[in-house]
Amino acid sequence: MKFGVVVFPSKAIQDFANSYRKRYDPNYALIPPHLTLKTGFEATDLEIQDIAKKIHEIAKNYTPFSLRISKFSSFAPVNNVIYLKVEPTEVLEQLHHDLRLTFSSGQEYNFVPHITIGQNLSDDEHSDVYESLRMNKIGFEEMADRIHLLYQLENGSWTVYETFRIGKD
Amino acid sequence: MKFGVVVFPSKAIQDFANSYRKRYDPNYALIPPHLTLKTGFEATDLEIQDIAKKIHEIAKNYTPFSLRISKFSSFAPVNNVIYLKVEPTEVLEQLHHDLRLTFSSGQEYNFVPHITIGQNLSDDEHSDVYESLRMNKIGFEEMADRIHLLYQLENGSWTVYETFRIGKD
Repeated sequence: MKFGVVVFPSKAIQDFANSYRKRYDPNYALIPPHLTLKTGFEATDLEIQDIAKKIHEIAKNYTPFSLRISKFSSFAPVNNVIYLKVEPTEVLEQLHHDLRLTFSSGQEYNFVPHITIGQNLSDDEHSDVYESLRMNKIGFEEMADRIHLLYQLENGSWTVYETFRIGKD
Repeated sequence: MKFGVVVFPSKAIQDFANSYRKRYDPNYALIPPHLTLKTGFEATDLEIQDIAKKIHEIAKNYTPFSLRISKFSSFAPVNNVIYLKVEPTEVLEQLHHDLRLTFSSGQEYNFVPHITIGQNLSDDEHSDVYESLRMNKIGFEEMADRIHLLYQLENGSWTVYETFRIGKD
């Protein structure tokens, strides 16, 4: 089964993201707007119980952290992905690092905290959309106090397996 | 903001339910397959923190409970809703009762534990689909050890706010 770890931002940010995702993100119906902390990894039903314990241990060592969004950005030319840029913080970086160590899987990517609002766009569509968004000033700031472990169903959608409160035992 | 309390069954049951929901349930893309324990109720950001605490208190007083599904059923003629019938148990009944008391909202409906696989069907479509399914024997049995508090986004989709482990503090 495929699992992942994300932060769901507040309803305000999710509604804002969905207003774009509806048109520009084919994953719109598969998962709510989210910030990925650990991308999809394989685990069995048994393994995940152990993994959940480890995530619980990690989460309780942190304190709720700030999510600040002030602009749109893009992964082009590597990927035609448009996203809400979440300002990198030491806490987010460290949390991502701890989760990566726990699973010790896959390649290392530079961690760029983001909430995707468009993907799989053609070059032209990407240019058009991104050009119209990139100069917009946006401002969201909130505290995140929980992270979520999800699993993927056969149709590609995601269900929450467990929520972990940050800083709570 | 609108909240609800559900049980997400295992991936096996969810995949099975989605194979029907894809065709017959307009809510297919808005929420994963689920058993509703408490239907949508309104609460503010502040109220929900208190509500979450109360659900936590309720959840820890129970022990993981069995979910048994052995047939399809329908709410027709009241509603053209086809569902996987979850065998009523005292625990499910009591859990539903405790949640209802906590929120003390809305009308009282007879609690019929179910996982919807089709709704908003025309009379003809309902008859066709239900007739083809009702004689099928199906068999799922599993333990549920968690319940989820969700909130609804503006597009009608649901995000998990918090997971509560049954019987854990």
